[in-house]
Amino acid sequence: MTLTNPSDVLSALIRCPSVTPEEGGALETLERFLSELGFTVERPVFSEDGTPDIENLYARLGNDGPHLMFAGHTDVVPTGNLEGWSHDPFGAEVADGMLYGRGAVDMKGGIACFLAALARLTGDKGALPGSISFLITGDEEGPAINGTVKLLEHAAKKGESWDAALVGEPTNPNQLGDMIKIGRRGSLSAKLTVSGTQGHVAYPHLADNPLRVANALAAALLDPPLDAGNERFPASNLELTSIDTGNPATNVIPGSVDVTFNIRFNDGWSAETLSAEIENRLRQAADALPDRATRGPARYDISFQQRPSPSFLTRDDALIGTLSGAVKSVTGRMPELSTTGGTSDARFIKDYCPVVEFGLVGKTMHMTDECVALSDLETLTQIYERFIVDWFQAQEGRV
Amino acid sequence: MTLTNPSDVLSALIRCPSVTPEEGGALETLERFLSELGFTVERPVFSEDGTPDIENLYARLGNDGPHLMFAGHTDVVPTGNLEGWSHDPFGAEVADGMLYGRGAVDMKGGIACFLAALARLTGDKGALPGSISFLITGDEEGPAINGTVKLLEHAAKKGESWDAALVGEPTNPNQLGDMIKIGRRGSLSAKLTVSGTQGHVAYPHLADNPLRVANALAAALLDPPLDAGNERFPASNLELTSIDTGNPATNVIPGSVDVTFNIRFNDGWSAETLSAEIENRLRQAADALPDRATRGPARYDISFQQRPSPSFLTRDDALIGTLSGAVKSVTGRMPELSTTGGTSDARFIKDYCPVVEFGLVGKTMHMTDECVALSDLETLTQIYERFIVDWFQAQEGRV
Repeated sequence: MTLTNPSDVLSALIRCPSVTPEEGGALETLERFLSELGFTVERPVFSEDGTPDIENLYARLGNDGPHLMFAGHTDVVPTGNLEGWSHDPFGAEVADGMLYGRGAVDMKGGIACFLAALARLTGDKGALPGSISFLITGDEEGPAINGTVKLLEHAAKKGESWDAALVGEPTNPNQLGDMIKIGRRGSLSAKLTVSGTQGHVAYPHLADNPLRVANALAAALLDPPLDAGNERFPASNLELTSIDTGNPATNVIPGSVDVTFNIRFNDGWSAETLSAEIENRLRQAADALPDRATRGPARYDISFQQRPSPSFLTRDDALIGTLSGAVKSVTGRMPELSTTGGTSDARFIKDYCPVVEFGLVGKTMHMTDECVALSDLETLTQIYERFIVDWFQAQEGRV
Repeated sequence: MTLTNPSDVLSALIRCPSVTPEEGGALETLERFLSELGFTVERPVFSEDGTPDIENLYARLGNDGPHLMFAGHTDVVPTGNLEGWSHDPFGAEVADGMLYGRGAVDMKGGIACFLAALARLTGDKGALPGSISFLITGDEEGPAINGTVKLLEHAAKKGESWDAALVGEPTNPNQLGDMIKIGRRGSLSAKLTVSGTQGHVAYPHLADNPLRVANALAAALLDPPLDAGNERFPASNLELTSIDTGNPATNVIPGSVDVTFNIRFNDGWSAETLSAEIENRLRQAADALPDRATRGPARYDISFQQRPSPSFLTRDDALIGTLSGAVKSVTGRMPELSTTGGTSDARFIKDYCPVVEFGLVGKTMHMTDECVALSDLETLTQIYERFIVDWFQAQEGRV
């Protein structure tokens, strides 16, 4: 095998069954490859009560600035039902030009391409005009507590600082070159508990049905929409995720009900202004309820997620322009600059340096038969190579 | 002890722990008492796959018509947490003029009073001007499958027929004389299952949230009200009893949700017209949903209870008048004629003969420290005595 071939690197990584929180040999393998390229590698383990210990990796090549970080994760989501797979999810089998395996696109493939790009650039032993580091966690698909957050703190404490970061998550909906992510919506979860008074269904006036109240409050959460989006972000959106009562008796009015929901919000909101809006909607809907004269005000409790993810937008035009240019020059396509989709570890990195995201095609991520086209691996490696060269060049221009 | 004293009879019955489906010695005791009064007693046991065997009692005194049935049950609901009781629930303890015990008012007390009334009437060995029967089940508080329904069929097959029936359930909300029940609303339960498409909350356009649909459908069930009631019946009423999703993941849109509800309906509806109304409301609400263009019509399934209870109204003015008159002559109060509250076994008896319900004060039924005033036992015994005499007299007038 050769490190300049991204499919060789990816195959080695896929064969490590690193389902969160297992390291599975993936970071061990990556450490070996990075060491070959001259990186100084560190493997800190982080732990916290009630969560599994997690292995992480931080590696740096070069001592001087400018300093570019490549960030990602080697952990993968579970395979799900193995019968759904036509190839061993940890076999890295190739069929019809596709390489199969859990993590192929999310995101061992991105790591493999960036590593191969570096191997090509440093192949002639040419020193980089600065430093490159790999910030790789084993806890991106899990609770994300012992991963990127702590790894960033750890490195920063040791004096590390970065000028820009590229996250290698799969950002392209359909084909390479579709989309660069330059920010993400925030995420806020909450649980609404509505309390009533249990009783017999034949005597509703002696009871207080919390489901009647919950139905009205949920309607107020859903409508009207939170906003219509703006030129940088799609609309904020609230989804009810669960309503649970657990009352098995058909002749009993239940005593309480839980309603959980999640909001993905754009930069028109902070977690604070959004919580206030939710509380306001609930209050107005509760006040507007009919038939509360004898029962008194509706009783409910709303509790918001303790560590919501804020929304963010990267405003480093040079970084975005360099990445877009690299994508365009290799694929011929100008990528959309997007803030759609779910959260990623970029939300932690943005507190340290400007961050953008670009990787493989996400279509098969988290699904059975996750796979990547061998041609995509080669194309992404060329894009990353171009980006690294151009970024350092742009930095020189800045100095 | 003496059978003419209702508190003696009730104490003996309370000491039999006859929590459904256990006979607990209650029917055994009742059989002994009825035999003493000259009744011919039968104790049929009914069974059905998947339900416990249930003991029942049918007893008759007299061979000729007119024939009055007294109906009720000796089974009781569980005690619940014993720590909540200040007296042994099966101890029949007396304190401050109150007799304590599970079943004191629901409805061993009613049985005791009717038996005491009969003991007083037949005490002088005077033959009744007709027949009286006791139709007593041990399955009223349970699934009611091996109880009154089968006992009625069983007796009817053997040639029994009745001219009227009195059910001794506790019908008075606050004090003896408040209320006679002359009918009951029907009961229909149903389960609505809304199906959607599971997905990630950050990509709602790729999913189809069933909670959003369920919220709109539930609102259509609740509003507008089914009717406003009529001079004979209170308004029909629908209560949501449970909404359950069981989705523990805050970032996942669930695949389906169950909504169960129960309707208590008056004689403006049959189970069939009501089911049609529900189906119609769901269809209209589903058709009115916004944003279904890309997702197609909402997917839901509604399944109605297999054996709903119909509503009924007793139209035998002589029977109602005789009972009201007896209540008035003993208590000085004219009872309200009501069709409120839950179902009772009267819904089965009404297919055989006109039926009315009158018993003790229901306040403590199904609660801890269920109890009855000794004075209420004496008063109800006098009412029943008066009713029996007057009813037979009225029958003579009819012939």
